[in-house]
Amino acid sequence: MKKFLLIPDSFKGTMSSREICSIMEKAILDNFLDATIISIPVADGGEGSVDAFLQAMGGEKVVTTVKGPYFEDMETFYGIIDNGHTAVIEMAACAGLPLVEDRKNPALTTTYGVGQLIADAIAKGCRKIIMGLGGSCTNDAGTGAAAALGAVFTNYNGNVFVPVGGTLKDIAHIDVSHLQHDLKEIELITMCDIDNPLYGESGAAYIFGPQKGATPDLVKELDSGLQHLDQIIQADLGLSLASVKGAGAAGGMGCGMVAFFGSKLQMGIETVLDTVHFDELLPDTDYVLSGEGKIDTQSIRGKVVIGIANRTKKANVPLIAVVGDIGDGIEEAYAKGVSGIFSINRVAVEYKDAKKRAKEDLYLTVDNIMRFLKRLGK
Amino acid sequence: MKKFLLIPDSFKGTMSSREICSIMEKAILDNFLDATIISIPVADGGEGSVDAFLQAMGGEKVVTTVKGPYFEDMETFYGIIDNGHTAVIEMAACAGLPLVEDRKNPALTTTYGVGQLIADAIAKGCRKIIMGLGGSCTNDAGTGAAAALGAVFTNYNGNVFVPVGGTLKDIAHIDVSHLQHDLKEIELITMCDIDNPLYGESGAAYIFGPQKGATPDLVKELDSGLQHLDQIIQADLGLSLASVKGAGAAGGMGCGMVAFFGSKLQMGIETVLDTVHFDELLPDTDYVLSGEGKIDTQSIRGKVVIGIANRTKKANVPLIAVVGDIGDGIEEAYAKGVSGIFSINRVAVEYKDAKKRAKEDLYLTVDNIMRFLKRLGK
Repeated sequence: MKKFLLIPDSFKGTMSSREICSIMEKAILDNFLDATIISIPVADGGEGSVDAFLQAMGGEKVVTTVKGPYFEDMETFYGIIDNGHTAVIEMAACAGLPLVEDRKNPALTTTYGVGQLIADAIAKGCRKIIMGLGGSCTNDAGTGAAAALGAVFTNYNGNVFVPVGGTLKDIAHIDVSHLQHDLKEIELITMCDIDNPLYGESGAAYIFGPQKGATPDLVKELDSGLQHLDQIIQADLGLSLASVKGAGAAGGMGCGMVAFFGSKLQMGIETVLDTVHFDELLPDTDYVLSGEGKIDTQSIRGKVVIGIANRTKKANVPLIAVVGDIGDGIEEAYAKGVSGIFSINRVAVEYKDAKKRAKEDLYLTVDNIMRFLKRLGK
Repeated sequence: MKKFLLIPDSFKGTMSSREICSIMEKAILDNFLDATIISIPVADGGEGSVDAFLQAMGGEKVVTTVKGPYFEDMETFYGIIDNGHTAVIEMAACAGLPLVEDRKNPALTTTYGVGQLIADAIAKGCRKIIMGLGGSCTNDAGTGAAAALGAVFTNYNGNVFVPVGGTLKDIAHIDVSHLQHDLKEIELITMCDIDNPLYGESGAAYIFGPQKGATPDLVKELDSGLQHLDQIIQADLGLSLASVKGAGAAGGMGCGMVAFFGSKLQMGIETVLDTVHFDELLPDTDYVLSGEGKIDTQSIRGKVVIGIANRTKKANVPLIAVVGDIGDGIEEAYAKGVSGIFSINRVAVEYKDAKKRAKEDLYLTVDNIMRFLKRLGK
């Protein structure tokens, strides 16, 4: 009886990780009737991450009411896994771009609700929190979330306030001594796959501001605000985070998670692999199947398939990558432990046409690999 | 030490069978350094068939002078393989379309030289002749070749003549009793992969006449000529061949090979497999690699890969198909014995772009399969 572990990334714009798992499952079972299959849809921190963890590990979806992007009350959710030990929060659940649709304005929106979700999870007894960044509508660098948990932001008039993107420049002091006490005992992991620094040309405002509705003028203003915040964090918290990779993720939330909560920033796939106890699943696994929309030199620098290869190689389990396109320079992927790389492209057509047939082509590609393995008696 | 047998069809318009063999060889040797590889470029009967057989089996290329398409003397060639037992002739060598370029006229051109090549091979002691059809400029139904070997065609004035496409209608009688005596002892195999009947809408003149330079009026005339010939063959030789599949191949040469020389018409791939003694090569072979430009329901009805699968399945040797496009309805290919089907398409681009990168993509695809086999310890 064969055991398969499925842990594909999404094919962006074509199939979700969960859809891919389910198509792979079918193709495997059509060939190995009694196969044991463990599916681990890969969360990337954005929308759908909580569901992905819940599907991979089981757990509880908690529904609660917190502040939305404009400080309005809204019902939202997070997940509790690992027998209540760990909470998974996607910041998009109460600070996500789809929540503001035609009211996009990163100068005004807040991550306050994200802090409330953290508080709720701690109150429910969670001792580890996984925070998914991505898909945010905010540029407050997590100051809202910090305020919700007790951080005190004072302006130059000595008044306490909750900063938003447009008022970061007004912060005169930050006091984290009032952060709720039990936060110190919590292990915080922030899933973060992007490298952007806090501010500057590659920073949060310049790169992600426009898609959140910022005009060129507002981008400059938001960028100045982030620079100002960086100076106050240096002065009051003694931390220099501006150029940390990922500080600029999710409107500076990457910076805020480290500065205010002492979170670790970690590759999404590493977080998933650790959380699902991937290494412990490997010893009796016959094949791991992964995949991503495109494998190339860029994905070799730290995306899903290679993250998995690092672990399957150590455990000596074959890793089959089923991908959309196979780019150039993949020699290194084999060196890093990928056993075989198979594209789902079966006919020479452009992406716009390939996309329409992707689900069927994925099925047929995995079906072919399974037939081949069966034929080889493997 | 692994043993591989390579026997790919050409990817029409992209790579010849021989090029594919050489790319596959490299990809295999890059992974299995001490592999034994037997390459059998697949001849389809057209131009290059003699070279393909010679490369696959070794042998001698005979250069000789015969009549060309317009009865002019020309130097051409055929191959002798199997220790002198078998000759391989491609009719295109002295009746091929490239020989007439701007003088195309299927009413005037002859297969006379093809008969001379047969005579030459017999004179050299060959006892089996493999005739490759394809790429011809003629529509004489092999009457020229028959005349060269002693068949006598008489017109309605009682005069002996050598018919061409435009004068088939003048044949009153055919006498094959003067065919050179030793022809009876010769085994003749005609490679023929097309199904067209001798005449009619799907016949030689209507389907292939235009590309040989026939105007619509001439097509009708050639078609009548073939109909007339059919009646004379029925009357004088007692054979009814018009609707035999392949009778219309190569300007009716399919019909002529059967009518005048008692040849067998046979699928090209079957001829190749028999000739290279494929079944005897299989027992200690680890993998057979084949391929074609596109595998689909049509190719399952008798093209290269499936012809090979029939044999590898019996011998229980895995057959890996590496193809351009994978069409629909290939379920049956697995049932017929193909172990795995891998497309060389690695990125979603149109054929015009895919074509340019085909050689590299073929290498990388076979390289990937070899890496995968090695990793599986197979």
